[in-house]
Amino acid sequence: MIEQPYLLFLGDAPDPLAAKVAQGIRDWRPDAAVGQYRLPDCNADMGLPDMSIAEAVAAGARTLVVGVANRGGVISPAWIDVLRDALTAGMDLASGLHNLLRDEPALVEAAQVHGRSLHDVRVPSVRYPIANGKRRSGKRCLAVGTDCSVGKMYTAIAMERAMHARGMKATFRATGQTGILITGSGVPLDAVVADFMAGAIEWLTPDNEQDHWDLIEGQGSLFHASYSGVTLALIHGGQPDALILCHEPTRTHMRGLPDFELPSLEDLAEVSLRMARMVNPACRITGISVNTHGLPEDKALAYLAAVERQMGLPTVDPFRQGADRLVDALD
Amino acid sequence: MIEQPYLLFLGDAPDPLAAKVAQGIRDWRPDAAVGQYRLPDCNADMGLPDMSIAEAVAAGARTLVVGVANRGGVISPAWIDVLRDALTAGMDLASGLHNLLRDEPALVEAAQVHGRSLHDVRVPSVRYPIANGKRRSGKRCLAVGTDCSVGKMYTAIAMERAMHARGMKATFRATGQTGILITGSGVPLDAVVADFMAGAIEWLTPDNEQDHWDLIEGQGSLFHASYSGVTLALIHGGQPDALILCHEPTRTHMRGLPDFELPSLEDLAEVSLRMARMVNPACRITGISVNTHGLPEDKALAYLAAVERQMGLPTVDPFRQGADRLVDALD
Repeated sequence: MIEQPYLLFLGDAPDPLAAKVAQGIRDWRPDAAVGQYRLPDCNADMGLPDMSIAEAVAAGARTLVVGVANRGGVISPAWIDVLRDALTAGMDLASGLHNLLRDEPALVEAAQVHGRSLHDVRVPSVRYPIANGKRRSGKRCLAVGTDCSVGKMYTAIAMERAMHARGMKATFRATGQTGILITGSGVPLDAVVADFMAGAIEWLTPDNEQDHWDLIEGQGSLFHASYSGVTLALIHGGQPDALILCHEPTRTHMRGLPDFELPSLEDLAEVSLRMARMVNPACRITGISVNTHGLPEDKALAYLAAVERQMGLPTVDPFRQGADRLVDALD
Repeated sequence: MIEQPYLLFLGDAPDPLAAKVAQGIRDWRPDAAVGQYRLPDCNADMGLPDMSIAEAVAAGARTLVVGVANRGGVISPAWIDVLRDALTAGMDLASGLHNLLRDEPALVEAAQVHGRSLHDVRVPSVRYPIANGKRRSGKRCLAVGTDCSVGKMYTAIAMERAMHARGMKATFRATGQTGILITGSGVPLDAVVADFMAGAIEWLTPDNEQDHWDLIEGQGSLFHASYSGVTLALIHGGQPDALILCHEPTRTHMRGLPDFELPSLEDLAEVSLRMARMVNPACRITGISVNTHGLPEDKALAYLAAVERQMGLPTVDPFRQGADRLVDALD
């Protein structure tokens, strides 16, 4: 568990997109960050108070989160002094970069001297069990996609927000770096060793109250040749009661695979349900979430209405319309 | 690549079953081992000449293979002296045990001093790529099962033998510890990090001659909640042209999962083909391999005949009948 609240380190982000981890935290856990730290060249702004390390500590910050990615996922030399100062001042560090905090001798030494933690969320920190396939109490919803990066995380976390607004018991369960930094915990599934993937998801979504929902962040796609095994482990470890189909209508081929067309929503529904019912015969598909970012408003709404007619399932873009209709359909 | 020929170390095997890795090498690569090394309490015998380390080196042995497993996969203190002597005498070591050769300081030191290699085949030694989904030349056949441990490795390696006997171009591609020790190379798929599983199988089965067949060792089952993701990565990374269905008819539930029944062969055929055709639309199921070890001869033959009628596919137990009919069906 990464201690909150955070100081969001935006570094020398060349543009707002480079700070998308920080933006995710800002959007979904606005109370989780007390301020932002920007170097002189920074071109991103979360609209939070700019703070020095000392000011952040005084404001209660417990962890400096590297909320910025530069080319290659490297920890830039320009950052090291600030990160070391944060450790010295009593903060932990958290990062989802490919290059690890723990591989920077200056940070390792400062963390040791000051008794602080370095959280590299790209690397599993738990010895996960082998999955046992046992049914667990409580309810689980999983977002599955026609492709990678079609809005599965967004959908799950938007549903959590809508459920909390209704006073429902719900927990977003992160399975990727950004989600883990947003919530402070989770499983970096793509970095888990093959034998333990499904067990990691069982561990992440344990027995719970009967009326509690886990909203599990999806990964990959059953139809994506590179990552389908990760997706199937999510389905079989998560034992979902409900599946949300996720899609991005302007994509011309599978992400990173120019020779592969996206499957139809019908195909996604059929295959996902077939696999999910192996472990939970009561599983059903309850809704469809479409990322219509690439379409103008009128085309987006027409597309959503057409899919809803075609599939006979509530179909929304949670970014444009909120996730309420997806939550309604869980009953 | 592990250098052959081997000296098979049987250690203090309490019974023949404990030496099943050695037995696999003996059965499938009889020319790969020049002799066996047994400690005084050994209750296993491969029918090979008993040799000292010096005799084995004189006979040309390049690698001592730990062909025995004891409880917990531990490297027993009683073994260390022999293993160190082998390194000193100029042999490499290879082991598929959970506990690693490289974690034994005495072995690490001896390997360093004498310039020898320690092959822990349970741990990947290659940085595998992310799968790219590209079609490759040559043909591939994959064994898929209704459950784990139903004879998938046996089927693939028996098919390789039958194909070699006919002068066909064929390579057994190992994906588990025993298979890797038998052939001297392969991918320990269950130990590969999630993101790289399918890419590891693409790496293992590269472009080849048009009339060459890779016989890929299967792992897990699409229906096994603990390991299904590994199986799907094999299917999507392997892009098989042919699938062999594997089954064990006396199993009462999925291995390690008392609450799960085995799927029918029809279900296995349908789901496996659905997943395989995502990456290779020409894939077909060409035969069925049944492990009838638990049935008497007459019942076994009756069962095989009944399955063949029911499924309309050549159905054999390669152990009782050889794999020729499975090879015939590949044309």
